[in-house]
Amino acid sequence: MNTKLLPYSQSLGLLTDLYQLTMAYGYWKSGMHEKEAVFNLFFRKNPFGGGFSVACGLAYAVDYLENFSFDDSDIEYLSSLKGNDNKVLFEKDFLDYLKKMDFKCDIDAIPEGEIVFPFEPLIRVKGPIIQSQILETVLLNIINFQTLIATKAARMSIVAINEPILEFGLRRAQGFDGSLAASRAAYIGGTSATSNVLAGKLFGIPVKGTHAHSWIMSFDDELESFKAYAAAMPNNCVFLVDTYDTIEGIKKAVVVGKMLRKDGFKMAGIRLDSGDLAYLSIEARKILDENGFDDAKIIATNDLDEIILDSLKGQGAKIDIWGIGTKLITAYGQPALGGVYKMSAVRAKGEKWKFKVKLSEQSIKVSNPGIQQVRRYFNDTENIGDVIYDCEKDLSKGCIMVSPFDMTKQKKISHDTEYRDLLIPVFEKGKLVYDLPDIQMIKEKTIKDIKKFHSGIKRLVNPHEYPVGLEKTLFAMKTDLILQSREGECK
Amino acid sequence: MNTKLLPYSQSLGLLTDLYQLTMAYGYWKSGMHEKEAVFNLFFRKNPFGGGFSVACGLAYAVDYLENFSFDDSDIEYLSSLKGNDNKVLFEKDFLDYLKKMDFKCDIDAIPEGEIVFPFEPLIRVKGPIIQSQILETVLLNIINFQTLIATKAARMSIVAINEPILEFGLRRAQGFDGSLAASRAAYIGGTSATSNVLAGKLFGIPVKGTHAHSWIMSFDDELESFKAYAAAMPNNCVFLVDTYDTIEGIKKAVVVGKMLRKDGFKMAGIRLDSGDLAYLSIEARKILDENGFDDAKIIATNDLDEIILDSLKGQGAKIDIWGIGTKLITAYGQPALGGVYKMSAVRAKGEKWKFKVKLSEQSIKVSNPGIQQVRRYFNDTENIGDVIYDCEKDLSKGCIMVSPFDMTKQKKISHDTEYRDLLIPVFEKGKLVYDLPDIQMIKEKTIKDIKKFHSGIKRLVNPHEYPVGLEKTLFAMKTDLILQSREGECK
Repeated sequence: MNTKLLPYSQSLGLLTDLYQLTMAYGYWKSGMHEKEAVFNLFFRKNPFGGGFSVACGLAYAVDYLENFSFDDSDIEYLSSLKGNDNKVLFEKDFLDYLKKMDFKCDIDAIPEGEIVFPFEPLIRVKGPIIQSQILETVLLNIINFQTLIATKAARMSIVAINEPILEFGLRRAQGFDGSLAASRAAYIGGTSATSNVLAGKLFGIPVKGTHAHSWIMSFDDELESFKAYAAAMPNNCVFLVDTYDTIEGIKKAVVVGKMLRKDGFKMAGIRLDSGDLAYLSIEARKILDENGFDDAKIIATNDLDEIILDSLKGQGAKIDIWGIGTKLITAYGQPALGGVYKMSAVRAKGEKWKFKVKLSEQSIKVSNPGIQQVRRYFNDTENIGDVIYDCEKDLSKGCIMVSPFDMTKQKKISHDTEYRDLLIPVFEKGKLVYDLPDIQMIKEKTIKDIKKFHSGIKRLVNPHEYPVGLEKTLFAMKTDLILQSREGECK
Repeated sequence: MNTKLLPYSQSLGLLTDLYQLTMAYGYWKSGMHEKEAVFNLFFRKNPFGGGFSVACGLAYAVDYLENFSFDDSDIEYLSSLKGNDNKVLFEKDFLDYLKKMDFKCDIDAIPEGEIVFPFEPLIRVKGPIIQSQILETVLLNIINFQTLIATKAARMSIVAINEPILEFGLRRAQGFDGSLAASRAAYIGGTSATSNVLAGKLFGIPVKGTHAHSWIMSFDDELESFKAYAAAMPNNCVFLVDTYDTIEGIKKAVVVGKMLRKDGFKMAGIRLDSGDLAYLSIEARKILDENGFDDAKIIATNDLDEIILDSLKGQGAKIDIWGIGTKLITAYGQPALGGVYKMSAVRAKGEKWKFKVKLSEQSIKVSNPGIQQVRRYFNDTENIGDVIYDCEKDLSKGCIMVSPFDMTKQKKISHDTEYRDLLIPVFEKGKLVYDLPDIQMIKEKTIKDIKKFHSGIKRLVNPHEYPVGLEKTLFAMKTDLILQSREGECK
């Protein structure tokens, strides 16, 4: 019996909320399905109380979109759904339409590894409303999670500075790709390796690992267990020293380390997984150094996150490598990025764009209109601000950026300020036009890019707010649209 | 270009931590790999500060185990890994052994949907140490997450009582199966339906959904948008009424509801997605009732969890159906269950079992020895306590249960108390011997089982602690083992 619970070779066309399909059906029945719409995927707040985020997930989105379709079993399932009158929900002609539907959207996106901020469209989808609508759920699923994890990893690596972080979270991750996608995102965000062998195989991430407490427990004696491990795998020895008494464990590691040295091998290090990591790492360093193991690394694990890491460093802990599991892989503390996908323009064939905003009583929840692009301005040393503007606006003579929630905060950008636009074309009329960069390239770019932001925005708590504004005419248009909608409702 | 980022038709043999494979190699090199070991998967604390948990994930584990193997590409990848001397990590004979390895473990488990408590083995693996060890990571990945979500859903449904909960979390879930597996676990724990169409298709969970704000925004006018939706899908009308002004939105829903009624259809209800849900739902109920829509449902969504749900009910909110996204699908608040997998016995061929405990300075982290089974005792009205005992112990004359952390707390169970054993055989020598129950059966059993526990253990905060103890001789054995280990280390 094989229950096929996992999405092995499974069409993922139906990985969406039912309401995307009922709306699609509504658009189709109303003859509106070929209307063009623009949607933007963005978040409203940096996660973890931080001052920046790291865009991630585009490669998964591309993979999904290249395979976006409904197979026979999808259609069959949809045809089985019933409404409250016990008649079918979707008529057959619509399902035939879905089955034959050709993906035709333009998709622009901010590449993976870019540093991004609230309200910047990470993905912009332009195309037939029936398609651009359906994609909402899956794009949010991909980008929300992976951006969250890449950002968490970046925060950790900013604190760790030059000390490598190993991602050890598979056992606590939320599902299989909750771990695989997160291993990849964490690597992009700044980790150096993973324990997840499949992530290593699939994505080319270095893999790390030696042994657990159970190895030691399967012997009658700790020293014997270290010797057996060293005999089996002399070129990969990090001894876990806290099974019984940590200081005694370190001394036994030293004994076996000397045997390895005699045989021409090198003890890579020791691992501490419990107790007072500050005290124990300092003691461990002394013992290792006294015995000539100056280059043996001390690896710490045990429910670490960036706050504990920062605190341990503050206490002078002698930790060379950080192994981080649960708190990274699940983004513990804030396990979801609240990214949303909002319509910003719509037009019938041959007509002009109608810009749209989604109203809310909370100003932060009112969306931005237009076919948005993000321009990042910079000088020789750092990035100075991002402007969200409508693509058709000519900024060659400079621009004025307006703070999204305080129109009195304005800043003039002169025409000769250096800039680059963040969104780049990924699909044109449904065809992939983007060459996905290699993960190493993405990672290196992330590390380089983070350096171009003022250290204040990278503080763990109460960071400085990086300037992101709306281009002034877009701001004015948004204000008009809000007033019009509210007036309309006051009639 | 297809990057194949998702585990479509991908061997999942390598979905494990590297250290499981380096230990496997160590066992093999030391000639210990056929030694038999017993491991137990358990957690130490109920999540969310609650008083119970709902076991979940066994069906996924079975699916994984039935396909457990290493394919050529896995072996090729492993053969490419290098140690710190730049020579291969694994020698070829070992990889050949892995490739040909036949799954031979006995696996006993507590079925999905059972109510479980700390220290009870949810899964017990007995078999060659090389196999029982490798499975640690993937079993933890599956059981930790799914048990967490089923428990979260059960907490919510206990508060909701008879009001259905719809799971709407796909867009915020941690990865694809972070949503699919969670939809299924939530359904087992107590939700009534999901928005996730693929989860509906794969698992037979009812799917629900109508439209989003973007539907309304794609029209010039809210009323017009409701009419168009009703025209397209008259048998599935839940109108989202808060796009502009909620009370006005409800009135427009009533207008369209009357049109539906005239055409012989039924407005299913309205949805509130923002604002003061208590106030608005009470007002909505009035307006609906005044217009003869007594049976139209009021559905509430907007970052709900069991605490808010409880509070809204306390305020007299007139909400009939709860749509819950982020807080359920990610188990926000505690996004990981800290389940562990510990060795409890080991023996060489032909020898007697050596029982094992994992020491720790924290008593709660010391593991239990033995080949454990859990016996649940009950009377006519409710369950009275669970005893963890060694399989070979004869309990036919009753037993004494001892609180795991306070040996002065003891309770005698007489021989004629009714009981059932929770762990049942799933694999015998690697062969599946368990008939996986249908998801509806699991769900119904869960609902029935929850009722057999005292309401005190189901409180959201500060619940009563359900009695779980160690059988007295097992407790004594554990104490001896701890003392022996600690003495050994004091020599």
